[in-house]
Amino acid sequence: MWSNRTRLTQPDMMSAQASFQKCGSVLVTGANRGLGLQLVKSLAAGGFSPGKIIATTRDPSSALKLKELAEKHSNIYIVVLDVVNQESIQKCVEEVHELVQEEGLNCLINNAAINLVADFHTVTAEKMIENFRTNAVAPLMITKAFLPLLKQAASRGACGAESMGIQRAAVINMSSLVGSVQLTWGERAHYFKWYPHRASKSALNMVSRCMAVDLESDGILCMAIHPGWVRTDMGGPQAPLSPEESISSLLSVIGGLSEKDHGSFQNYKGETLPW
Amino acid sequence: MWSNRTRLTQPDMMSAQASFQKCGSVLVTGANRGLGLQLVKSLAAGGFSPGKIIATTRDPSSALKLKELAEKHSNIYIVVLDVVNQESIQKCVEEVHELVQEEGLNCLINNAAINLVADFHTVTAEKMIENFRTNAVAPLMITKAFLPLLKQAASRGACGAESMGIQRAAVINMSSLVGSVQLTWGERAHYFKWYPHRASKSALNMVSRCMAVDLESDGILCMAIHPGWVRTDMGGPQAPLSPEESISSLLSVIGGLSEKDHGSFQNYKGETLPW
Repeated sequence: MWSNRTRLTQPDMMSAQASFQKCGSVLVTGANRGLGLQLVKSLAAGGFSPGKIIATTRDPSSALKLKELAEKHSNIYIVVLDVVNQESIQKCVEEVHELVQEEGLNCLINNAAINLVADFHTVTAEKMIENFRTNAVAPLMITKAFLPLLKQAASRGACGAESMGIQRAAVINMSSLVGSVQLTWGERAHYFKWYPHRASKSALNMVSRCMAVDLESDGILCMAIHPGWVRTDMGGPQAPLSPEESISSLLSVIGGLSEKDHGSFQNYKGETLPW
Repeated sequence: MWSNRTRLTQPDMMSAQASFQKCGSVLVTGANRGLGLQLVKSLAAGGFSPGKIIATTRDPSSALKLKELAEKHSNIYIVVLDVVNQESIQKCVEEVHELVQEEGLNCLINNAAINLVADFHTVTAEKMIENFRTNAVAPLMITKAFLPLLKQAASRGACGAESMGIQRAAVINMSSLVGSVQLTWGERAHYFKWYPHRASKSALNMVSRCMAVDLESDGILCMAIHPGWVRTDMGGPQAPLSPEESISSLLSVIGGLSEKDHGSFQNYKGETLPW
């Protein structure tokens, strides 16, 4: 329907794993639960392991599963980050700088998100703004703050790579199919009548596209990705995908990203989505 | 390029004028200046004149040009509305109810907007949120508040019209080409690096599309329109279109809207734009 590529193949996955193995550092926001936690888990355990996995969460003391994971894998670093707090963002950048030193940050995954469910009748201005603040504004402010570290990684062209990709520097924004304005129509639009979430994700897509334009000259790849409908707290128990399935496919896509994917909106299978 | 229609023809314009003449009431937000003021001017003077023109502005005492216009045309009614204030919205609805009585409101034009110019380096969370609040959230909250009056007009099917259109009930959201995520690419994307404005307009497009889905069963048309690049305070002196040119073409499009345009994103020439 909107596909430009068939399913990921075994060679795709192997080449994606090789990219992660050449990648010095990956930072995942909102890593305490849901897809963020699964991202850290899959990065640590599978063949997708980068040098350092930096897992951010607002309150590490309550992130028990993440702490358990970090105890098992010495390449997981937990760093405090409240994504809607500028001071917290700045402190996080300093801490990450200490960790990655002159290598810079190779891959920033803006995953932290909320979903304030509200339809036409229950939506309020406050819900719209709160959802927008976390899902669209925070990824922008975080990317701005990490720009020096991303540029550092991009300019080193880690491991001699000159093209775009996570082995150099990339910003991955976790978007959603519900952020596609075009697909908010027909039968599909009668599910998920989530005004705050939908508006925030279409705004995130715009932010992602604008950043792609601005980061290109520094060799930093930027794109938006839809993880599928997944059985997390946000996705609910009736979702068709397990977190493992979503993230293993998602990492195959992320590892394989190159110039041709810059500024794109794709799903976890690497299929291009309409805006 | 993205056109699905050639230029508007003379019969298109005449049929659009006939629709406005059958339309009991049109409300324009942000009518004190720019395109809002021109909308009121063109509605009052031209062949596009509806029964009542309701012009809202935050501070009527400083809206000198609008007051001058209202002194010349007895069908212009000035009503106070601060679009980001829920109490003000509620009061405005009550006042409009007094004006339109059981006829309801036929056409709501969500025109009020701001543009907090900021690029990747100068953008702040506050600018993003303020622009979003006025350009995307306010049209949603205003439409919600006017729903009873819009439903009233739609159910009366003013003048026997059964199909969708402004002679029945319609919500027109003044969007912008810069809200198109798809078109934010290539050479075009290097103009207008306006993060807050672009993100707010793509969010407005999503809100518009969601509302189209929800208002359809009440027979209320909803769509987003791009007025062109116009010589207003916002557009600047180098813009190619005069306010008169933009609005006369825009009104020809709005007057001609029917079911096929429900949920669409068009420019002032009636050409469909990509999301």
